[in-house]
Amino acid sequence: MRHLFALSLLLATAANAEAPKPLTSAEVLAQAPAEAWREVNPENLVLLELQSGTVYIELAPAFAPKHAEQLRGLIAQAYFDGLAVLRSQDNYVAQWGDPLADNVEQARPRGEQAERLAAEFDQASDRVGAFTPVPDGDVYAPEAGFIDGFPAARDPATGRSWLAHCYGTLGAGRDNAPDSGSAAQLYVVTGHAPRHLDRNVTLFGRVLEGVEHLSSLPRGRAPLGFYTDEQAKPAVKGMRIASAMGEEERPRFEVMRTDSGSFRAFIESRRFRHEPWFAHPAGRIEVCNVAIPTRRSTARD
Amino acid sequence: MRHLFALSLLLATAANAEAPKPLTSAEVLAQAPAEAWREVNPENLVLLELQSGTVYIELAPAFAPKHAEQLRGLIAQAYFDGLAVLRSQDNYVAQWGDPLADNVEQARPRGEQAERLAAEFDQASDRVGAFTPVPDGDVYAPEAGFIDGFPAARDPATGRSWLAHCYGTLGAGRDNAPDSGSAAQLYVVTGHAPRHLDRNVTLFGRVLEGVEHLSSLPRGRAPLGFYTDEQAKPAVKGMRIASAMGEEERPRFEVMRTDSGSFRAFIESRRFRHEPWFAHPAGRIEVCNVAIPTRRSTARD
Repeated sequence: MRHLFALSLLLATAANAEAPKPLTSAEVLAQAPAEAWREVNPENLVLLELQSGTVYIELAPAFAPKHAEQLRGLIAQAYFDGLAVLRSQDNYVAQWGDPLADNVEQARPRGEQAERLAAEFDQASDRVGAFTPVPDGDVYAPEAGFIDGFPAARDPATGRSWLAHCYGTLGAGRDNAPDSGSAAQLYVVTGHAPRHLDRNVTLFGRVLEGVEHLSSLPRGRAPLGFYTDEQAKPAVKGMRIASAMGEEERPRFEVMRTDSGSFRAFIESRRFRHEPWFAHPAGRIEVCNVAIPTRRSTARD
Repeated sequence: MRHLFALSLLLATAANAEAPKPLTSAEVLAQAPAEAWREVNPENLVLLELQSGTVYIELAPAFAPKHAEQLRGLIAQAYFDGLAVLRSQDNYVAQWGDPLADNVEQARPRGEQAERLAAEFDQASDRVGAFTPVPDGDVYAPEAGFIDGFPAARDPATGRSWLAHCYGTLGAGRDNAPDSGSAAQLYVVTGHAPRHLDRNVTLFGRVLEGVEHLSSLPRGRAPLGFYTDEQAKPAVKGMRIASAMGEEERPRFEVMRTDSGSFRAFIESRRFRHEPWFAHPAGRIEVCNVAIPTRRSTARD
């Protein structure tokens, strides 16, 4: 690790000496052209409505098509209305849905939706979008970077790609069997990236806005952060999908295209921080420390 | 990076084939002998008392002796009593103290304590304790691991060591000048490790218990998570140091010695997770994903 580190630092320094000074993040965002952004497909834009506010999530069907379809089906039948957040474990996850999801007889009926889904832990790299690597390596995977606006990792030796458990990632809770998930319990990462969960759970989205409504919930006092009977479980008012909402009320988001030059410049701006406060720019960055630029869109169809 | 990753994975696999199956974390903790634990020195055990509960912090004077001494001096004069949490920025930090700390004329008087402290961003490696590395490398530093119960990094080429910005780490807020900190504003990391801050701020402790009283605070709505005038700032009832408390009320903690065999076994148990839920043990771990074992002690002096 050490030699590699020294070498890449040397290369980075050499490249930096030749290249113009990297932009600050604010400069990158100000200069990004319209084509550096993509509108979030309303079929993939999911709202989780809590008492304190709404969490906006973009689904990643390319990585987990069955889970995305199942969640759309559950939302269409108002499956989550009146359920609750079940656990909030500090520095880990917040999880919501049907507390009896694993119990076929007692679970809330799912209509046409499956009782269990096959695991979608990873995907063939040629079935997902373009990969933009972070240049400084990764502790957990051969390569880490971004695919279609999501933090991801991949292994060229196997030709497989997977979403990475960064802060704000959406996953489908499961029991011990890999195929025991059903999207009837969902979680969002609310702490330091638990990357050891990669390829152990189906990930299929990330929070675009409002993650604080999950991350600032009181922590559950039972093991794993489950709420105790004495604690009031935070209510889930419901989940909605933007495509089912009227034109006027529908939220619209844009995400910076992670295969754009603007995004590559953004990564550089985060590696070499030029804001006056920094005494010692790191010159390096880890995949989960790049917050993918996301903004509300004013566009109308 | 790729070749190195493949090589270290190969070595880890080979070592694993020869060695007995690693223990689970629960087994390591159950088997750790008394000498694998050290009592936290009450001179280094600091309490931050908030409305919702107490945050217990261990100071690391070996890394930042001036900051530790300054904080002890401020606490001794009840400096923090009646101040407030100033900002809670999602996935980043919570910060408390004197909102006017940088303003010499308006700051709360500090008695004998300094107006400004020289930065203590890093320390000579031979002046801090034994280093126990994580074996899977690090994106930000040549070597990462643990020193005296704190997550740390070091550079053998320069002979310098520093504390790493992992979840729960304590730092001293500063203005743009590196020597503008005074320990009159303090922060704790409450999100994904912002390792790009390493060596840019003086770190000098970590939370042992109660970090959720900071991490679950409502987020401030102004830039950088500062609370707005309309938001009620969470009150700081005060800060205390265990050594100034009576024998009976004094809290006692033990931290696993990070240079012990038990701790090395603990790291292995987190790299290769054998709990039945895991379908795909990572076989790797990153420094900030090792939660250093910490427990309440029943010992009496």
